[in-house]
Amino acid sequence: MSENTTLEAIKYTPGHLEILDQLALPHETIYEQVKTIEDGHAAIKTMKTRGAPAIAIVAALSLAVDVSARHARGEFGQSAATAFTFLENSLEYLKTSRPTAVNLFDAANKLSAINQQAASIDSATASSVVQTYVQAAEQMLVDDVQDNKNIGKHGADFIIKNVKNNKDISVLTHCNTGSLATAGWGTALGIIRDLHARGDLTHAYCTETRPYNQGSRLTAYELVYEKIPATLICDSMASALLNQNTSVQAIIVGADRVAANGDTANKIGTYQLAITAKHHGILFIVAAPSTSIDLNTKTGEDIVIEERPPEELTNVTGIRLVDGKPTPTTVRTAAQHIGVWNPSFDVTPNELISAIVTEKGVVVKKSGEAFDMTSFLLS
Amino acid sequence: MSENTTLEAIKYTPGHLEILDQLALPHETIYEQVKTIEDGHAAIKTMKTRGAPAIAIVAALSLAVDVSARHARGEFGQSAATAFTFLENSLEYLKTSRPTAVNLFDAANKLSAINQQAASIDSATASSVVQTYVQAAEQMLVDDVQDNKNIGKHGADFIIKNVKNNKDISVLTHCNTGSLATAGWGTALGIIRDLHARGDLTHAYCTETRPYNQGSRLTAYELVYEKIPATLICDSMASALLNQNTSVQAIIVGADRVAANGDTANKIGTYQLAITAKHHGILFIVAAPSTSIDLNTKTGEDIVIEERPPEELTNVTGIRLVDGKPTPTTVRTAAQHIGVWNPSFDVTPNELISAIVTEKGVVVKKSGEAFDMTSFLLS
Repeated sequence: MSENTTLEAIKYTPGHLEILDQLALPHETIYEQVKTIEDGHAAIKTMKTRGAPAIAIVAALSLAVDVSARHARGEFGQSAATAFTFLENSLEYLKTSRPTAVNLFDAANKLSAINQQAASIDSATASSVVQTYVQAAEQMLVDDVQDNKNIGKHGADFIIKNVKNNKDISVLTHCNTGSLATAGWGTALGIIRDLHARGDLTHAYCTETRPYNQGSRLTAYELVYEKIPATLICDSMASALLNQNTSVQAIIVGADRVAANGDTANKIGTYQLAITAKHHGILFIVAAPSTSIDLNTKTGEDIVIEERPPEELTNVTGIRLVDGKPTPTTVRTAAQHIGVWNPSFDVTPNELISAIVTEKGVVVKKSGEAFDMTSFLLS
Repeated sequence: MSENTTLEAIKYTPGHLEILDQLALPHETIYEQVKTIEDGHAAIKTMKTRGAPAIAIVAALSLAVDVSARHARGEFGQSAATAFTFLENSLEYLKTSRPTAVNLFDAANKLSAINQQAASIDSATASSVVQTYVQAAEQMLVDDVQDNKNIGKHGADFIIKNVKNNKDISVLTHCNTGSLATAGWGTALGIIRDLHARGDLTHAYCTETRPYNQGSRLTAYELVYEKIPATLICDSMASALLNQNTSVQAIIVGADRVAANGDTANKIGTYQLAITAKHHGILFIVAAPSTSIDLNTKTGEDIVIEERPPEELTNVTGIRLVDGKPTPTTVRTAAQHIGVWNPSFDVTPNELISAIVTEKGVVVKKSGEAFDMTSFLLS
């Protein structure tokens, strides 16, 4: 199943699951085997696995390897009911690893529905129930990666078609939207991977993404890993870059949530990048799975901005060598007693967005109008 | 002479000089006495004193206290020539503390000319030469602070007159342009001090100012010290702030160099702030002494962007407690092997600037035209 050669935060073959320990990144690349639901729960709880889609899939697959091993040991006998009960209890347990993760709850509920159906068939056996679950969990991984690959393809097509000079395309991205945040490949970073794979990418730039440095820690790590020609800049340097390097013809970002009119909530700093893209007349592209579109959110004004603790901004965690060993260390950079505003994301109004790229295709809009995400989803 | 009650990086009374050790900031406030030119040289070389005007003045005043003490001890006898030779050799020596500091060289040359004139008078004595030097050095401090206070006054007047709602004025500033970077009071931060002193400031916001964190370390320190209501944000949050808080009606920045047409080189990130100021329809103000205007630089295109070492961006120095004592510590945040672009400043084109504030007054422009800095300087 793991046949793509790009960076994998989740390595899975039937009966065997490994996760990339993201706490050790970017300084050490350590894979850890997940054999049981307890291992999966711990990986999520300690944030060795992060990113909403990745959490859901690691939970699902940890149960797949665990239930397969138990079934092989004969723990369920022939009883569909025993296997079903174990699966259901396990999903409930896995949900407690990250009680705020919506994707995890959605995935667990979908899998539970599949379990119930499998167990309710007259001819159900432990084998059939286990096999149905394992296939469904494996399919989630396949589907998520495939969705991202489709986002990458649609986005790369759109960019090549819409930039002024498609012989010299460089792009800028923000935060981390790659293999480390998804089941694999990535959304905005998936588009960059696709452009690079086609030979159509001159250079990728990534922002540091203050205050939590997802860009300098994770995106930079992925770009180095993939050998994509890449340069890290501070968030404040984006405009100077666009002014000096006309090869940069698109800014590509992910999305936490897309409203019905296309207004997009994403990592803090996205809105400022959209403004500078407009000022410099380049494309500003949002890439996200269609599940990020929330038609119940009419516009960006309906989105409440979450504020994070001041310490995320005043302190920085990095690595220093202690007796030659890379050691995570937190230092305080800011003056004591200063007030801090630390919103975790901002909202980019639809008028600053050139296109919204999903696995189902690209949404554009007529000049002066909003995006019609409702028609797009229903079509 | 030190009668203002704001934060002083340089404390001077005749015969006595203390400097604030900026290496210990923002975590410890330590003043250190400078008794000799060797002390002054060391303070500059080790960067305990920083900021171009401050360096020049600490050098000049270290010689003032040193030469006064020597004269009081009778080291020069009555010989004007002996005193003159000591002063000249000392200025040459002080220039070696920071060989790239233009302000330091300018100041040393001006003081040298004054020394030569004083020594060439027929009635010159050691006393008259020493006294002339000391007065000139003291005058530099007075003039620099006075220039900043005039910048503050002109800038505050302009803002109060030109904002939409002068009953609720908040401002955003970038980098450090305060008492810690000048002889005292500050340029852009001097305007904020003036607004606050008048009771016309609702709130000050300062950017972190990546990659070197002058905002979170130094400006935040000054704002806390002065009890100015203030909040620190990341550079990437400026646009989100302007979108949400309509009280913020001006962005105020300093300048490294102002070209003849008003194009302004300043700390990296300034250009991006100017773009977002324009997008949100608020004032964008450059504050600098008129000595920063370089008529030989016709436009911003004549300014070469200096690039700084990658480590300034990939590593962060902060403080951690070791056995209860604040200890400077450097950690690496970024992934290994990632390319880095680290320009130290950028150029903001004149069309994005509302006004350039100097100690001589405010320069504005007609719509669609550039600033005429030549006429301003010559008028």
